[in-house]
Amino acid sequence: MSTAIDIIDVTPRDGLQIEKQVVSTEDKVELITRLADAGARRIEAVSFVHPRRVPTMADAEAVMERVPVREDVSYIGLALNTRGILRALETSVDEVNFVLPITDAFAEANQGGSTGSLLAELETALPDLEGSGKKLSVTLAVAFGCPYQGEVPIADVVRIAGTLLDAAPLDELAIADTIGCGVPGQAQNLFEQVGALSDVPLRAHFHDTRRTAIANVAAARAAGVRRFDSSVAGLGGCPFAPGAAGNVATEDLVWALERDGCTTGIDLESAVDTGRWITGILGKEPGSGIAAAGPFPAGR
Amino acid sequence: MSTAIDIIDVTPRDGLQIEKQVVSTEDKVELITRLADAGARRIEAVSFVHPRRVPTMADAEAVMERVPVREDVSYIGLALNTRGILRALETSVDEVNFVLPITDAFAEANQGGSTGSLLAELETALPDLEGSGKKLSVTLAVAFGCPYQGEVPIADVVRIAGTLLDAAPLDELAIADTIGCGVPGQAQNLFEQVGALSDVPLRAHFHDTRRTAIANVAAARAAGVRRFDSSVAGLGGCPFAPGAAGNVATEDLVWALERDGCTTGIDLESAVDTGRWITGILGKEPGSGIAAAGPFPAGR
Repeated sequence: MSTAIDIIDVTPRDGLQIEKQVVSTEDKVELITRLADAGARRIEAVSFVHPRRVPTMADAEAVMERVPVREDVSYIGLALNTRGILRALETSVDEVNFVLPITDAFAEANQGGSTGSLLAELETALPDLEGSGKKLSVTLAVAFGCPYQGEVPIADVVRIAGTLLDAAPLDELAIADTIGCGVPGQAQNLFEQVGALSDVPLRAHFHDTRRTAIANVAAARAAGVRRFDSSVAGLGGCPFAPGAAGNVATEDLVWALERDGCTTGIDLESAVDTGRWITGILGKEPGSGIAAAGPFPAGR
Repeated sequence: MSTAIDIIDVTPRDGLQIEKQVVSTEDKVELITRLADAGARRIEAVSFVHPRRVPTMADAEAVMERVPVREDVSYIGLALNTRGILRALETSVDEVNFVLPITDAFAEANQGGSTGSLLAELETALPDLEGSGKKLSVTLAVAFGCPYQGEVPIADVVRIAGTLLDAAPLDELAIADTIGCGVPGQAQNLFEQVGALSDVPLRAHFHDTRRTAIANVAAARAAGVRRFDSSVAGLGGCPFAPGAAGNVATEDLVWALERDGCTTGIDLESAVDTGRWITGILGKEPGSGIAAAGPFPAGR
């Protein structure tokens, strides 16, 4: 098992997207700056979603104009359709991440089309993407369970991943437990099966909704995954479970991984401080175990 | 890996012990009755601790006089010294669980003696225990880290477990992450090493203080453990981290295990209801992911 783990901090996008409060462009830029200073080397900075659907992401272009230019940090912009990809290509994002839900039901609700039609949207933009020099990743959403369909068979994930890998030249394939319903045996099985399809690096996105996120990370690691999404203070929540926990907290993930001998490059204290700062702006408490209990041993 | 998992519900003792509010004998008996009705087959019902140290446990004998007599349920009484064991033997508990901290610092603070002197206390009571027909288990406390000493080497746990196994005929050896600082690699390593010492069944006791409890359960399962402590609503807390999460919640554990194909014999809905009922009495919110988000799929 690799002990060098890459953390992709998704606070500015997945962490903030669910919040009713619109965070100012200035505060988003400060958040991104703080995350980079804490050691994050890949940051999901913005979403090129229609501003009517997610008003708090309406300033994506303005954010990307003002983030610090750092050779050592790669900024990711999320896209949900062809238009979103083309918007991303006009900005300074280093990577485009396209969201492809496994179930048609979630695809329709989230992006207004079937899984197949969304894959076609991605394919439409491939020539522009290839000419841009930007990296391309795809996130397979609701891969562990869907709020509309219910159970999602691993076979469906493998089938759609296979079609996608044949259709598009990916730099990375991310697989998301969008509503935090995954369990570790499922996670290991799923990542082993998808990992067998190609040499494209896999990334895992877990929510701690039902307290299984760290377990799922360990299981995905056993299947060879070494790239994980997280959000400071566990921001992110779940629109389908109001009041529940959100993304696995960056500080919980960093602490647990490093205590088991891994390296992440993230400064734990800075991650906790950044979580306290942004939750202060949002008027809520940090949702991480480490923010509540402190690290062990103390002072790490 | 075995898929039949035994859950030991520790709500009446470890769940309530930290609470400032003294729960009435009547409510304790109802709690125990509800847990048994939910399917718990082993329940940590009482602690024979000095009432000055833990006032809320002062009614241990009265509780044991009133719990339902059930052939299919085994009641566990906790003991911290010879006197506690002898008190337990005068009651209807089916099992005595003796607490032996790995570090002298915690042993002194928790039980007023060194680890060695507490082992001697256990040995003093062995003849009475053997004549009683009651089962004996020992919990090795602070085996994953100590609030006073800091890091606890696995070698120390293995050494003390070895001495204990030579000294006393145990029906079970429990190993506790008393302050919730364990991580999965550590858990698997620790349980593999202690498991290699004898054929005595192992039990694992995890707290979700830093969101690693379910991960640690999965890791202990990989090391062969199939007995796990938990508490409804995640009650239990940690006196060293006020406001932090407590024991791994019975409902989170049952949901995660059963979703991965295990059987626990616990009815999930009843566990959630019992957690809501007892936290209502305590005037607090349930601390479990399942209570906040519901199970997945819904209605399980």
